[in-house]
Amino acid sequence: ELRETITALLAPQATELSGKHIVITAGPTREAIDPVRYLSNHSSGKMGFALAAAAQRMGAQVTLIAGPVNLATPAGVLRVDVVSAAEMHTAALQAVENADIFIGCAAVADYRPEQVADNKIKKSNDGMQITLVRNPDILADVAALKKAPFTIGFAAETNDVAHYAQDKLARKKLNMIAANDVSDTSIGFNSEDNAMVLFWREANNTVQQQALARASKSAIAQQILQQAAKLLSNNQ
Amino acid sequence: ELRETITALLAPQATELSGKHIVITAGPTREAIDPVRYLSNHSSGKMGFALAAAAQRMGAQVTLIAGPVNLATPAGVLRVDVVSAAEMHTAALQAVENADIFIGCAAVADYRPEQVADNKIKKSNDGMQITLVRNPDILADVAALKKAPFTIGFAAETNDVAHYAQDKLARKKLNMIAANDVSDTSIGFNSEDNAMVLFWREANNTVQQQALARASKSAIAQQILQQAAKLLSNNQ
Repeated sequence: ELRETITALLAPQATELSGKHIVITAGPTREAIDPVRYLSNHSSGKMGFALAAAAQRMGAQVTLIAGPVNLATPAGVLRVDVVSAAEMHTAALQAVENADIFIGCAAVADYRPEQVADNKIKKSNDGMQITLVRNPDILADVAALKKAPFTIGFAAETNDVAHYAQDKLARKKLNMIAANDVSDTSIGFNSEDNAMVLFWREANNTVQQQALARASKSAIAQQILQQAAKLLSNNQ
Repeated sequence: ELRETITALLAPQATELSGKHIVITAGPTREAIDPVRYLSNHSSGKMGFALAAAAQRMGAQVTLIAGPVNLATPAGVLRVDVVSAAEMHTAALQAVENADIFIGCAAVADYRPEQVADNKIKKSNDGMQITLVRNPDILADVAALKKAPFTIGFAAETNDVAHYAQDKLARKKLNMIAANDVSDTSIGFNSEDNAMVLFWREANNTVQQQALARASKSAIAQQILQQAAKLLSNNQ
């Protein structure tokens, strides 16, 4: 009986997400300067992996595109490992072809070094200049597709969180954005907990918001997916 | 009986390193660009942690100064966690005050951004320039101390390995250097195995070398420490 209870708890649930294909990016990307050095972003990948696990539990078919992280693949999830933003861009655009929802949770490096040295750059006594160029914008490119999935972005900000989040929602033509204040070390980055504000555009073009109080990343993930499922069914 | 055997195997051994104080740095350092972005080096920290575990098993008192890694602290080892090269420099110079051996195994970032932004830098459509300045040289500063410990460096190179390693041995006035070719992905970085060449200066100022064939990082660690113990007892 206990075994049946556990099996039932672990088995995918029949929800609004049953059978939907959800593509999630997670973790940081690394942009090589040379074979030894790289540029990166703080990101443990925990939020994206929590979303993948929750989506799978809610009955979705999940593709998880992960940057370099130290996390186990959630059961039943298809994982694609990548390193750089360019690799993540390619993997994401390929994966979303028949996706219903795309969640860009990765902390993608906005910039990469213009040149990657084949050999380790020897240090000199002087300073050093690195010229960076913009990486492709995965979220904006997915949202701009003719058959774009319901696209959810994340905004990790240290200041003016609501302002930057709503700007990103509009500018990248996202369906929803989840914003959090990473200057609060009790949430975000390597923390087990998170607290977020969701912003989305209604059919009448007004922006609505919903605050998700501090909770485990797993609980936050479920609330984000429930809200997405609601909006997705309204859209259809 | 089995329990006694295991206890005996795990207990520190009486070796030339018994009672010696060994300070080891391990892992990468991270140099903040802003609260979200950073520069770093590839380094899992496995080699440094293997050295700490081996030194403890050989009876030494071990201080392990670790950059951001996902590794458990070896039993009986005092661990000090740091993030930046500047923090590692401070921790190392403090720890070596009564040390017999210093092993600089960390992949310390040679450069850090000249300025660290308090808030996340907003991206623009243009490129970006980062001006980097030199970090303090932990190995050279330890080796230059009036009461310098026996100082061992590491050289992770992608080309001309022996040349760069011997240059570093002389230039930083190290007692020994362990060199490896990180362009070979079967060893180094995140690998469980390693292969190295040790270089050291004899009393008559000739440079000697010893190749350590590919083996587990734990086995390589023990061979490095055995060679260090031999040279240390010759010096005294």
